[in-house]
Amino acid sequence: MISNKMHQMLKGSSTIREMFEEGKKLATIYGKDNVYDFSLGNPSVNPPTCIGDQICEIVSDTPAMELHGYMNNSGYESTRQAIADFINKEQNTHYDYTNVVMTVGAAGGLNVILKTLLNPMDEVVVFAPYFGEYRNYVHNFDGILVEISPNAPTFVPNLEELASKLTARTKAVIVNSPNNPTGVVYNKDFFEQLASVLTQAQQKFGTSIYLISDEPYREIVYDDSQVAFVPSFYSNSIVGYSYSKSLSLPGERIGYLLIPSECDDFEEIVAACNVANRILGFVNAPSLQQKLVERTLGSYCDLSEYAHNRQILTTELAKMGFEFVYPQGAFYLFIKSPVADDKEFCKVAKEHRVLIVPGSSFGCGGWARLAYCVSSEKVEKALPAFAEIAQHFGLR
Amino acid sequence: MISNKMHQMLKGSSTIREMFEEGKKLATIYGKDNVYDFSLGNPSVNPPTCIGDQICEIVSDTPAMELHGYMNNSGYESTRQAIADFINKEQNTHYDYTNVVMTVGAAGGLNVILKTLLNPMDEVVVFAPYFGEYRNYVHNFDGILVEISPNAPTFVPNLEELASKLTARTKAVIVNSPNNPTGVVYNKDFFEQLASVLTQAQQKFGTSIYLISDEPYREIVYDDSQVAFVPSFYSNSIVGYSYSKSLSLPGERIGYLLIPSECDDFEEIVAACNVANRILGFVNAPSLQQKLVERTLGSYCDLSEYAHNRQILTTELAKMGFEFVYPQGAFYLFIKSPVADDKEFCKVAKEHRVLIVPGSSFGCGGWARLAYCVSSEKVEKALPAFAEIAQHFGLR
Repeated sequence: MISNKMHQMLKGSSTIREMFEEGKKLATIYGKDNVYDFSLGNPSVNPPTCIGDQICEIVSDTPAMELHGYMNNSGYESTRQAIADFINKEQNTHYDYTNVVMTVGAAGGLNVILKTLLNPMDEVVVFAPYFGEYRNYVHNFDGILVEISPNAPTFVPNLEELASKLTARTKAVIVNSPNNPTGVVYNKDFFEQLASVLTQAQQKFGTSIYLISDEPYREIVYDDSQVAFVPSFYSNSIVGYSYSKSLSLPGERIGYLLIPSECDDFEEIVAACNVANRILGFVNAPSLQQKLVERTLGSYCDLSEYAHNRQILTTELAKMGFEFVYPQGAFYLFIKSPVADDKEFCKVAKEHRVLIVPGSSFGCGGWARLAYCVSSEKVEKALPAFAEIAQHFGLR
Repeated sequence: MISNKMHQMLKGSSTIREMFEEGKKLATIYGKDNVYDFSLGNPSVNPPTCIGDQICEIVSDTPAMELHGYMNNSGYESTRQAIADFINKEQNTHYDYTNVVMTVGAAGGLNVILKTLLNPMDEVVVFAPYFGEYRNYVHNFDGILVEISPNAPTFVPNLEELASKLTARTKAVIVNSPNNPTGVVYNKDFFEQLASVLTQAQQKFGTSIYLISDEPYREIVYDDSQVAFVPSFYSNSIVGYSYSKSLSLPGERIGYLLIPSECDDFEEIVAACNVANRILGFVNAPSLQQKLVERTLGSYCDLSEYAHNRQILTTELAKMGFEFVYPQGAFYLFIKSPVADDKEFCKVAKEHRVLIVPGSSFGCGGWARLAYCVSSEKVEKALPAFAEIAQHFGLR
């Protein structure tokens, strides 16, 4: 009796979430310490200590009716202004609270902006490999997902293919740097070229093409990699941000959309995002969490464990003969499957109690994603299992 | 460049929210004390003191990674089991955590269950007057909203009209008691008859018709009114609950869906709700708020101010010659417009700095909603303005 769409979804469901549940099952059988679950992007480092302190402080110094009550559907003006000020300082921009819409995480933000923009059959372009939920978010609004093929081994998107696939129906392009699942960080040259391709297409078709930059991993970068500020390259940019990873608060569902005033139809878009937040059932981003991020701007959890894990894994897996993308950001290692069928690779890994996700879940068969947001101890303990997997596939 | 649907929405937008914003503007001009804003259902009584205390306790005694991390998309099992236990004790039922899905408020819950159930063109029946957002929620999934006419002056829905409007495409009926905007509480006889009508229609069409009971005002009742437990009357019942009103936490977005095991296709429904929570971008209900409601089950804010306001308003407005539904629950007074055009009534009220919402926003022209979730002092101060409005319309 459930809807046809949901019936199909249940069959496909999310491989990542399935593995999350499976990991819990394996942990019950073998003991948590003996399962090496690298399947889910669930932050493994504690939130900064200011988080707990600030929550109690906010509760004690904010009138309860203000703290837990309704506010504008786009969020508290003070929170939005504080975020605008913070971005202005970092990026030398001139935003104010009208440019910021608080959202139920980045997932909520993406749904809000897609609800705002998409007519049925409008096209949204993604670069494979991509976070599988993009497909569901686009389908929520009857949009068409258009994939650009994976560009191995660098995984920097192929902009010629993009140019050839932009049409009069292209409403948006989603970009995600630092990237899930590859860990690649796109450089300034890339964004300059991307902007040029999109600008030409806008002129050709007489349309607006919005570049939606999904940035939950903005702060998680290595080796002094620089994360580009997308609106500085292309005026029709919209940024979706989440505090899930930078503050290790994924369960709290807090993030924002940044909508620069330079965007075509800016005023209609922010008004529509406000309404979309309401009618999609979010109503507003959780109020206490809004106050929390307002007071902790510029605080980050200690990301050094991710850097350490990256160092161990890239060193040791290379020795074992695995090929992978050397990640510049996020906490993912994208490993080339030793056999053509990435599901077979992941199945064998699971037999060695290592949980990784097939690249086909990200639109990129032949590869697999390892999420190294786990303790370094776990990474170390998993190395013998990886060695066994390497041996199974006859790598060096 | 925004979508056609959102373009239409912006034109219509929410009258209630508009008035909320307008109220803030008037407050800037005349001073907050001189504007009588009865437009929004924003709780006016403080959360119980245990709320602040418990938040700090939870932060101090729960590992941060557990407190702020991802969990199953349906919520923490412990929270869901605690809620099931609480309902079991109150209603003598036998639910467990599998019957409970934690949601981003009742608005999130309704969207999750409608996403789960609706194919495009499926019909969802509502009884006018009804919360205007139902229309948007149903349209989110391309469903058809079918209205049953207002049944003045009792506003207990006309079940003969319901029977005549049920079809093979009816997927759900939404019921809301205590009711927004009328304050009417439907009694057991009503639910028995409703169950009988729905059961007959299910047999006639060979379909399942789900009765979605939206219960954010469950605890707000007067004069020992009893709120029926809907699943005890009809097996295909699904309850949507929110802590927004009972704990005065509307900004925090925390509620749940109760899906009894007796529902047709129970297992598919709960699995689909889990997926819907994820793909609609909620991902999960805010984690800290889940822990909070788990620890404060059975706590309620002091609802006596609402009772007091109800007493003042019903006494004084009756004396002035206003007609209204005598409310048994919620914090709304549904007033008959002294003129046929309820928008004219609300316009005149606004000229006296009284903000109330036209009944046409709830599918019931000729009436208006007064939300008395304000301080009793505000209610007292507004009485002269109401007297002027009565005089304007020549009431006694």
